[in-house]
Amino acid sequence: MIYVVGIGPGKKELMTFETVNALNESEVIVGYKTYIDLIKEFIKDKEVVQNGMRGEIQRCKDAIKKAKEGKKVAVISSGDSGIYGMAGLILELITKENLDIEIKIVPGVTASIGAAAVLGAPIMHDFCHISLSDLLTPWDVIQKRLKLAAEADFVICLYNPRSKGRKDHLQKAFEIIGEFKSGDIPVGIVKNVGREGEFKQIVKFKDIDFETVDMTTIVIIGNKSTYVYEDKMITPRGYVL
Amino acid sequence: MIYVVGIGPGKKELMTFETVNALNESEVIVGYKTYIDLIKEFIKDKEVVQNGMRGEIQRCKDAIKKAKEGKKVAVISSGDSGIYGMAGLILELITKENLDIEIKIVPGVTASIGAAAVLGAPIMHDFCHISLSDLLTPWDVIQKRLKLAAEADFVICLYNPRSKGRKDHLQKAFEIIGEFKSGDIPVGIVKNVGREGEFKQIVKFKDIDFETVDMTTIVIIGNKSTYVYEDKMITPRGYVL
Repeated sequence: MIYVVGIGPGKKELMTFETVNALNESEVIVGYKTYIDLIKEFIKDKEVVQNGMRGEIQRCKDAIKKAKEGKKVAVISSGDSGIYGMAGLILELITKENLDIEIKIVPGVTASIGAAAVLGAPIMHDFCHISLSDLLTPWDVIQKRLKLAAEADFVICLYNPRSKGRKDHLQKAFEIIGEFKSGDIPVGIVKNVGREGEFKQIVKFKDIDFETVDMTTIVIIGNKSTYVYEDKMITPRGYVL
Repeated sequence: MIYVVGIGPGKKELMTFETVNALNESEVIVGYKTYIDLIKEFIKDKEVVQNGMRGEIQRCKDAIKKAKEGKKVAVISSGDSGIYGMAGLILELITKENLDIEIKIVPGVTASIGAAAVLGAPIMHDFCHISLSDLLTPWDVIQKRLKLAAEADFVICLYNPRSKGRKDHLQKAFEIIGEFKSGDIPVGIVKNVGREGEFKQIVKFKDIDFETVDMTTIVIIGNKSTYVYEDKMITPRGYVL
């Protein structure tokens, strides 16, 4: 039995009951060590299998091995397990090896939803998620999606916006998006949603300082109706008030 | 004080702790009556303000009135409060009247995330949300977004896909999307996520029966890599296995 669990942005309050139940019922907890640290209180003396960044495939293989031994295993992802999380990888491995292991996907609050709640209501209308990481996706696919999403005037949530190894992606993304979106459109930046050091900033598209953005940050770019009131970023749904 | 609360798809297990805390702390619960029914166990003898469909503006005005009287109020949405929910409307009304009321947005598991967990892992890669309701959004904007989202090969989650008054929207949407997506791409249909009568179906794009879809349904259309294994719909993230 493998639970593929989304733990939400970080704090217990944003976890679901199903997530906590799945962690409690599991004998082995498998995850990226940063996320293991976030859920320490639910682990106690359970067996833990953890490793570092880019160790996703090994982690999932380890989880499957433990499940084959008859153990109940929880594989954790931050946010939702099904959005750039471990759900796909676990199911791909199960598919490939044609394994008979029960899998339960346990959803969670993804980073865009957590960040949006901190900012106000920026994703109240049609929106998309685009990851700027080209580790697994060709950069030309990412560029095409950025262009078409901007042309469609989606609210755009950027995941993995900027890392040490990919410092220029965010600026390049803004150049592509800037062809279709006005420089005055609000952009929300939230770092460490629901974790220690939570940081929030709302700026105009043209005024963003890319240096404030790192891998723990979600960037939400408004649509042409998005506005700012005091410290809130709001995308109207279209009601006539 | 107004909590704008996302209650998740329906069952308690998919609520967050923050949602339950906010409901417990509130003196007045305001919501669409179908959703009030879903959280009865958290309401008990609290004051309830409920009304029917399309009563959103009145509900939010009622909530603000109660908050002005000094009461702690929870305005509920199904799914996440910030995705086609009440967060935007509450903040718009606060903005318009320049009111000094504390607002706390409490996020929840939105329908696409709940449906995805039921289907497998269909939204593991870049995806978008598009509502097919043209009550508040011009149909030409919706059509443009459908076209560009399909061209970008996003996984597409359709909200409000089909109602009695808008029977043809879904078929029209499929005609637009079908210009860019192959007829063999998997489509996941989930009705009543996490509620009584939950129903799940995975079909090929060309084989969808529009009659199975209603307003309580989420439709998730895969990207060109999405595949089906047994009863699971999986969109690979790009790992080489």
